Amino acid sequence: MEMPSPNPAILARKAELAARLSAVLPADALIQDEVETRAYECDALTAYRCPPLLVVLPRTTQQVSQVLRICHQEGVPVVPRGAGTSLAGGALPTADSVILGVARMNEVLETDYDNRVIRVQTGRTNLSVSGAVEEEDFFYAPDPSSQLACAIAGNIAMNSGGAHCLKYGVTTNNLMGVTLVMMDGTVVEIGGAHLDAGGLDLLGVICGSEGQLGVVTEATLRILHKPEGARPVLIGYDSNEVAGACVSDIIKAGVLPVAIEFMDRPCIEACEAFAKAGYPMCEALLIIEVEGSPDEIDHQLKLITEIARSHNPVELREAQDAEEAGRIWLGRKSAFGAMGQINDYMCLDGTIPVTELPMVLRRIGELSKQYGLDVANVFHAGDGNMHPLILFDANKPGDLELCEEFGADILKLCVEAGGCLTGEHGVGVEKRDLMLHQYAPEDLEAQLKVKDVFDPQWLLNPAKVFPLAVTEARRVGGVAAQ
Amino acid sequence: MEMPSPNPAILARKAELAARLSAVLPADALIQDEVETRAYECDALTAYRCPPLLVVLPRTTQQVSQVLRICHQEGVPVVPRGAGTSLAGGALPTADSVILGVARMNEVLETDYDNRVIRVQTGRTNLSVSGAVEEEDFFYAPDPSSQLACAIAGNIAMNSGGAHCLKYGVTTNNLMGVTLVMMDGTVVEIGGAHLDAGGLDLLGVICGSEGQLGVVTEATLRILHKPEGARPVLIGYDSNEVAGACVSDIIKAGVLPVAIEFMDRPCIEACEAFAKAGYPMCEALLIIEVEGSPDEIDHQLKLITEIARSHNPVELREAQDAEEAGRIWLGRKSAFGAMGQINDYMCLDGTIPVTELPMVLRRIGELSKQYGLDVANVFHAGDGNMHPLILFDANKPGDLELCEEFGADILKLCVEAGGCLTGEHGVGVEKRDLMLHQYAPEDLEAQLKVKDVFDPQWLLNPAKVFPLAVTEARRVGGVAAQ
Repeated sequence: MEMPSPNPAILARKAELAARLSAVLPADALIQDEVETRAYECDALTAYRCPPLLVVLPRTTQQVSQVLRICHQEGVPVVPRGAGTSLAGGALPTADSVILGVARMNEVLETDYDNRVIRVQTGRTNLSVSGAVEEEDFFYAPDPSSQLACAIAGNIAMNSGGAHCLKYGVTTNNLMGVTLVMMDGTVVEIGGAHLDAGGLDLLGVICGSEGQLGVVTEATLRILHKPEGARPVLIGYDSNEVAGACVSDIIKAGVLPVAIEFMDRPCIEACEAFAKAGYPMCEALLIIEVEGSPDEIDHQLKLITEIARSHNPVELREAQDAEEAGRIWLGRKSAFGAMGQINDYMCLDGTIPVTELPMVLRRIGELSKQYGLDVANVFHAGDGNMHPLILFDANKPGDLELCEEFGADILKLCVEAGGCLTGEHGVGVEKRDLMLHQYAPEDLEAQLKVKDVFDPQWLLNPAKVFPLAVTEARRVGGVAAQ
Repeated sequence: MEMPSPNPAILARKAELAARLSAVLPADALIQDEVETRAYECDALTAYRCPPLLVVLPRTTQQVSQVLRICHQEGVPVVPRGAGTSLAGGALPTADSVILGVARMNEVLETDYDNRVIRVQTGRTNLSVSGAVEEEDFFYAPDPSSQLACAIAGNIAMNSGGAHCLKYGVTTNNLMGVTLVMMDGTVVEIGGAHLDAGGLDLLGVICGSEGQLGVVTEATLRILHKPEGARPVLIGYDSNEVAGACVSDIIKAGVLPVAIEFMDRPCIEACEAFAKAGYPMCEALLIIEVEGSPDEIDHQLKLITEIARSHNPVELREAQDAEEAGRIWLGRKSAFGAMGQINDYMCLDGTIPVTELPMVLRRIGELSKQYGLDVANVFHAGDGNMHPLILFDANKPGDLELCEEFGADILKLCVEAGGCLTGEHGVGVEKRDLMLHQYAPEDLEAQLKVKDVFDPQWLLNPAKVFPLAVTEARRVGGVAAQ
């Protein structure tokens, strides 16, 4: 992964920059020691590492604004960071950048059950947002697998989803307003606890913008009343195509389960070996969960199991109690851990139209043979969000590069199938060059122009999202140079 | 309503401009006769009128692109127009502008039931989108009152909602992709039949942008399977406060009706006189509709009527059959027509947090006395989208101005209550000066900068959305002048 060369002039001014930053921050909010900054050298895409110049850990929007204003004046790149759980290198530093971590900004600012909203500082973890409202039986819907650790800031940056987003939508569908600090330090309020925005609605473009447009320090989130109950059903098929057809039929019938998860044989085997969930050994396994009152659950499961049976499953098991439901989910939820025990793996993230599932799985199988690397597939099938895991050996020279090439081919396949090279992990550094595969030049140009106006010098989260050559050309020839 | 002075240089070049446009359009697609262009002098906000310079009615994206390119080269303002049903003057011409009407672009381009999407040209009417898929029992969810006439182009421009949007969301929640023609003629594809967008997701800012950023010629829309059935319940209360409290409790309990409509006494009286729907004469009437299977309907109505009864209603009537359901809705759906029979009226459109309903209604009542103008309130209470109707006499000198002043006070009240000066009608010309009340200068500046990059000369839909002074300053001093 090629990264931009650090700017030597910035490196030389480290002490001076640290002095300016320390003047606006509490003593414990600036990290400049090289051993300590090393803790921020990577995120969850650990294949790439680069220690930053400095790390700041502000506690307030005002401090964030002051830090950005100083970096803007000094021409220093800034990499915003939530909890560092990005799987796409979204928080990877450059050597001449300041990491702006929001992890200490984790307060609940307001809880309003009557209007079903909560306002938090964005360093708060996803799960602890639900934790803050659970005593009133409310929850925050988007549930990325990393929800115990990941921050709302990162969820907003990547427009994160999760297993239960089929029914409730992803982050953008549950985000009502943000406080955004722009690169020049300007603090902007966008959206709020109401359903529309007068004029241009900037909230949608902020959500999923991967720290390219500003730093989101506070967020107003939709909270929902917990359903009375939920129950999963486990359905096994002897082919991916048939399982895919079953998913299509359920969606088409207008039933809306809260989750439809899909695992292929390599994934089933790994999960079963790891979690002993009692999964049948078959080609494809679906976990479909519905929720509501007992009557509603019965009614929806009846419709779903009728459709599932018409496709001749090799197994169909409704959870009879909470213990069995827990076991059904345990296997799926430990999928990444299970795969990690067997092999190094790279987790991909693309989206396809649901009907293309069988075709895409078949092609992935063919590519797997061609590259000589195994793939396990586990994904949110209801909304076509795929997570192929490519297995490789990090200690074998060339294997990582081969894996990356294979991964790129799978994501191109998603685009060709009418889908998208991202689902919920973002573009980051991982997929920036594939953007040219997704977008025509004029489509990409429209995005670049919006980046130009929010961050004319292209200082925010450098070398991500857009192809490196585009970023570098923009820095010297774009609005920045005017 | 002050409008910008027409540019005399443009008026003088009318014949030349018509010649250039006719070279790229079919013979019947250019209207230059002054009698015929008069048909486009206003939209549904008929208090303001201004015939445009020319009208073009293209049939393809390519023709739209050519028209925009020519107008861009000539520096001629363009007013995009769907079906002209805007209640906020969103399609009001200026004397030196070309009206670009998309009404003839009404083809269905693709229907994909398996992936639940339809792709249409945006001149197609809202209801005829559902019409195109009803034989397979699908529908398009957003349902503005004008759905028989209004075009998808206008729905996207205004982010339209409707009575049934509480459950299904508004346009932005059902829009998956657009083809956008920018002012310089560039054609851009944004989004598609997949759930995420790599990089910056521009779809959200395009939706609701009121023709400020480009002309949307094609759209990919989410279609849904029709529910098995639906049933409304009519609930009357002897105070607005109690009705408001009932709505809050229903929302808080986590029940999700497909619609919660609210009418106050003046509206009830007018509707009853007009439609003979059998409404009780009381202070506040709620129509709450749920849908699903018969079991689901029973279950949800049980929860709702329990909550409603705890607030001591003066009337509570579940529809027993389709005929009674139809009658319950008839009154509500004829509300605007009923009011129009009694008086001239101005229909406002603002959004507030649901819990502020009683306070806002009380303040509107006080303002009504102060201004000496009656108000009838009818609105989508579930999501806090208000539609106060101010009654006035268009033939009485000064009454319109008084009505506008009163309307502005109501919308300011919405903003003060933590809401927004728009719900689903947009800002248009009607509320452009109120934008300074909603947004701090730096918040508005972020919007203006995005407008700058999509339309640097500020030619698209002039004198709308932003305060007139801001638009004029931007035209001469903004990016356009660089």
